Amino acid sequence: MDQRRYFEQLDASDPLRDMRALFDLRDDRVFFNGNSLGPPPRATANRLDEALRLWRDDMNAGWWDHGWLRLSTLTGDRIGEIIGAAPGQVVVGESTSVNLFKLLCGAMESQSGSERSVILTDPDNFPSDLYIADGVARYVQRQATVRRTPTDEIIDHIDSDVAVVMLSHVDYRTAQLLPMRRINERAHEAGALVLWDLSHSAGVVPVELDAAGTDLAVGCGYKYLNGGPGAPGYMYVAHRLLPRFEQPITGWLGHTRPFDFTAEYRPDAGIARLTTGCPPLLSLLALDEGVALTARADPVAVRAKSVALGESFIALSRARLARYGVEVTGPADSAQRGSHVSLRSAQAERLAKDLAARGFHLELRPPDLLRFGLAPLHIRYVDVFDCVAAMEELLAESVHGGPRR
Amino acid sequence: MDQRRYFEQLDASDPLRDMRALFDLRDDRVFFNGNSLGPPPRATANRLDEALRLWRDDMNAGWWDHGWLRLSTLTGDRIGEIIGAAPGQVVVGESTSVNLFKLLCGAMESQSGSERSVILTDPDNFPSDLYIADGVARYVQRQATVRRTPTDEIIDHIDSDVAVVMLSHVDYRTAQLLPMRRINERAHEAGALVLWDLSHSAGVVPVELDAAGTDLAVGCGYKYLNGGPGAPGYMYVAHRLLPRFEQPITGWLGHTRPFDFTAEYRPDAGIARLTTGCPPLLSLLALDEGVALTARADPVAVRAKSVALGESFIALSRARLARYGVEVTGPADSAQRGSHVSLRSAQAERLAKDLAARGFHLELRPPDLLRFGLAPLHIRYVDVFDCVAAMEELLAESVHGGPRR
Repeated sequence: MDQRRYFEQLDASDPLRDMRALFDLRDDRVFFNGNSLGPPPRATANRLDEALRLWRDDMNAGWWDHGWLRLSTLTGDRIGEIIGAAPGQVVVGESTSVNLFKLLCGAMESQSGSERSVILTDPDNFPSDLYIADGVARYVQRQATVRRTPTDEIIDHIDSDVAVVMLSHVDYRTAQLLPMRRINERAHEAGALVLWDLSHSAGVVPVELDAAGTDLAVGCGYKYLNGGPGAPGYMYVAHRLLPRFEQPITGWLGHTRPFDFTAEYRPDAGIARLTTGCPPLLSLLALDEGVALTARADPVAVRAKSVALGESFIALSRARLARYGVEVTGPADSAQRGSHVSLRSAQAERLAKDLAARGFHLELRPPDLLRFGLAPLHIRYVDVFDCVAAMEELLAESVHGGPRR
Repeated sequence: MDQRRYFEQLDASDPLRDMRALFDLRDDRVFFNGNSLGPPPRATANRLDEALRLWRDDMNAGWWDHGWLRLSTLTGDRIGEIIGAAPGQVVVGESTSVNLFKLLCGAMESQSGSERSVILTDPDNFPSDLYIADGVARYVQRQATVRRTPTDEIIDHIDSDVAVVMLSHVDYRTAQLLPMRRINERAHEAGALVLWDLSHSAGVVPVELDAAGTDLAVGCGYKYLNGGPGAPGYMYVAHRLLPRFEQPITGWLGHTRPFDFTAEYRPDAGIARLTTGCPPLLSLLALDEGVALTARADPVAVRAKSVALGESFIALSRARLARYGVEVTGPADSAQRGSHVSLRSAQAERLAKDLAARGFHLELRPPDLLRFGLAPLHIRYVDVFDCVAAMEELLAESVHGGPRR
């Protein structure tokens, strides 16, 4: 059988095949950078039109009459369905980095009675996460230090100095998927809290925060949750920690009764204590649509397709591209891999440019890394086949000095 | 002459009369709560449609190809035109409260070499501003204390303990307009910094930050700047302070080269060091439209009309409503008044409800305050006349037990 035909058949029998129609996608482009920005749900345009109409008709009253004030927690609960969190533990906030700041400050504050002063993280964590941790240690929790320990050794370095372990569930470069439950357990034995960044896992990898005994988590709204450019991120604080969890940016919407305008701040009893000011409503509505779409997919089917796309991509790359010096990076075992695959090539920059000209869009991480996000809700098996075939052709051209016949 | 006709003539000769057509307004409603949420500019819907198209067509590339990454500073500079700030000193951030947190932490940090430890503010400042100051003192600058001194005494309490004076330029309840330049000068003589909240002044009251020697300011995007529900706010840091200004939420977009993904944070040399994560693009675009519209109006004409609307409102209220126990609150002198007028009435709650039924929407501040925002870009003189006439009718009904003939 023709190899492309095989992948077409995988698409035809894909239990998620109907999800694709929920997105507003171009026929002539394949976006393998859905892990940087998910495509627009079709419903988002209508949701924004409706918001503009309500804004015109009812102005400020929309915050009460149309539920805008409750949306941060409502969308939070919807996200909770995707990341295995019971209601009341997830809320939408500002950007992932601001949210991380709040949770890291709160986590350190909650450990302030102890001798623990170390924020333990990984030198390959997403740079903004590292910058935020350094900022917390420099400007807020001045007795704190940040210790950067390689991922594969981290579990052995959770000692009695560690207040908080801060890790990405899936590494943004290599797609390494960390064993959340095991790390939580080890940290809890040692008396430390764990703060997870779910930006590259939520929506594509099974996340079971409650079941894994997770303490704290943040995540991004614009990647696999399809919330739109710069969509707000979210925060998770486990029920058991919430009543005593104090974050430093104590604005009115975190108050238990914001519109009483009392002289003193009194934090909301629930997850709203993590919020500060008015949410950017238009962006929040778009996030809510993206989350609603994402939550419709069966997570078991999502993970199965994500793994199958990854295995296909890797097998095709090894078979067709290895001879041109292209190397598959990251974990070989799919159980330890998130939903993107990175290739290393000396010709990465040129390849990214030429692939874009053929309609395949992906992330270049200079100098030599090509990152392909495999978002199961809109990437097809044939897309993977066609993209690897295009790379093979482009690499062959560069070797043979012209189009291969 | 019929009194309503007089106000119609004022509208006919209003130099700002054409601005109204730039908003998407309902004919049957008048929103005197534009100081809580400005109405939608007509251009905003198109701007959002375009953004959705670009999102679909180019996905993540939009951040570079369509200038989304530069928009926080570009819109900041546009806001700078409205508040008298030369380019490079204003940037859009998160909500006003988060922005205030950043500037207050940075201001205290910059005073950390001194013995100054007091944040001086006003007990009637907007509650969220007070909560933020308390949060900074409690969780970040732990040696700091917050001192609340009544507005009219504050200038005499700027002593050598004061690190930062934090004030609202226009009081959200009384509309009291503070003398920015004089307070700046007094604070600088005493060695303190001043941080202004422009939420109720920018766009309606002349603000000349550079000329007044202002240090720091924040403001709201969704009131008189017409940026939409929950629009992001903005921050101003004077050029002379910027190079050494350090704020604690050090995320990647505040980095001098965010996409180099270096291991250590190095703040941007300019105003972008105030930013943290990806801005909520849809809300930011709507803000940019609101700001662009607002910046088109001649600020001298805006202030003149704002004062005239206020004087009309107050004169009509005194003439027609005083007999029903309605009292005009706030400064009598228009030079000390922002662009809203508050009335005190024992029947405030009922009046707000009945006025809404007649199409006049305003803010009720329980128990007895009615707040009327007089946004000169869309409120007409006849609107003021009609609203006071409606109040008179409603109050007469309640006295006479039925409609007055």
